[in-house]
Amino acid sequence: MDVAVIGGTGAEGFGLAMRLAAAGHHVTIGSRDAGRGAESAAEASALGGVTLRGTDNATAAAGAGTGGVVAVTVPFAGQAEIYRSIKDAVAPGAVILDATSPLATAVGGRPWQALRPWHGSAAEQAQAILGDGPRVVAGLHTIAAEALRALDREVDSDVLLCADDPEAKTRVGTLIDGIPGMRWVDCGRLEMARVAEPLTALLVSVNRTYKVKDSGFRIVGRDAWGRRP
Amino acid sequence: MDVAVIGGTGAEGFGLAMRLAAAGHHVTIGSRDAGRGAESAAEASALGGVTLRGTDNATAAAGAGTGGVVAVTVPFAGQAEIYRSIKDAVAPGAVILDATSPLATAVGGRPWQALRPWHGSAAEQAQAILGDGPRVVAGLHTIAAEALRALDREVDSDVLLCADDPEAKTRVGTLIDGIPGMRWVDCGRLEMARVAEPLTALLVSVNRTYKVKDSGFRIVGRDAWGRRP
Repeated sequence: MDVAVIGGTGAEGFGLAMRLAAAGHHVTIGSRDAGRGAESAAEASALGGVTLRGTDNATAAAGAGTGGVVAVTVPFAGQAEIYRSIKDAVAPGAVILDATSPLATAVGGRPWQALRPWHGSAAEQAQAILGDGPRVVAGLHTIAAEALRALDREVDSDVLLCADDPEAKTRVGTLIDGIPGMRWVDCGRLEMARVAEPLTALLVSVNRTYKVKDSGFRIVGRDAWGRRP
Repeated sequence: MDVAVIGGTGAEGFGLAMRLAAAGHHVTIGSRDAGRGAESAAEASALGGVTLRGTDNATAAAGAGTGGVVAVTVPFAGQAEIYRSIKDAVAPGAVILDATSPLATAVGGRPWQALRPWHGSAAEQAQAILGDGPRVVAGLHTIAAEALRALDREVDSDVLLCADDPEAKTRVGTLIDGIPGMRWVDCGRLEMARVAEPLTALLVSVNRTYKVKDSGFRIVGRDAWGRRP
């Protein structure tokens, strides 16, 4: 699958790009600066023993087309601007994976504090900026960058996905399931991101207390775990 | 330990009362009506093969004293009124376990939708009503009543606890750790309940999608799991 990772030079996006490239996908790292995108791609390729490409955000987003996934892994402070900058490049009907957590760090607060975006969640803000064509899926808020970067270990965590479009959610879920140890969970409509996004803050709090870096969630209690019925 | 379960006639409270009695604690079920509290206690005693007492909410709350725990497991719609009704009975310095999830059902909405309480969280509202003496611990939002009721099975779930007072949090955590399969996680200050409480809505959404009744969370990623450092 063609996957663009917008903000792929950051820790979370870089780890995701490496994991998806290792799973056999055609991954392009996007950056505000095409040169930095290319540098990050070269670094990820060397580290992972696979080939990634790198370019500017808009070119990367366009390259995913309608059949791929555009993953957006940027800080909340820059999220709206980034979406406006790729809006015209995103294919109609494209699938967007938004991983934004509205942490209070965006306004000088602490990473264990969360903001309430005007639209309800950062993912709903993304959908509002992109308009009706692209289909936004919210996810990855509870996956630590450190866990993604450690390619020699499985990622022991579930990925909570929220989206209005079932096909888009399943497409992103398929990507997730291809990463060793990860499993996607259908958490309902896009608006459920209002609950899922602040979980990053909760995990930051747990990490601080227990002096770890990669706490995460598993959903339990499902006797017969599998795909959605 | 002396434990009062306010709202112990409801599904969540009833299950918690049975689990704690089975673990050897002196449990009193509180209800608005002393007779109904006694009936519930008799039912729980028969089902669990242990002895629980039952009475009205204020008497139950007073009985926990300063060394016990007052667990409050009531719907959000009645939470403020319940706290006002037990306020004068709660011992100064008492430890309160508030399990309230501010679900939209309180105002005729859906159980996979959450409200934002004026104080930030339902637990902070409880603290505001009780004043500075009692120490509120928020927790149990992610534990299904069905899982608590099934005494023949371990509860496969972590309990996310949020509180400002470390001793109160540890006391409740000790109660939790005494229930087979359960484990408490220190999620930080009481205000983190703003993130933890709406998780009930997320689990309701997961339960609906997968047609299960008892999904829950485990925290993963801690190589050396244990008590707080």
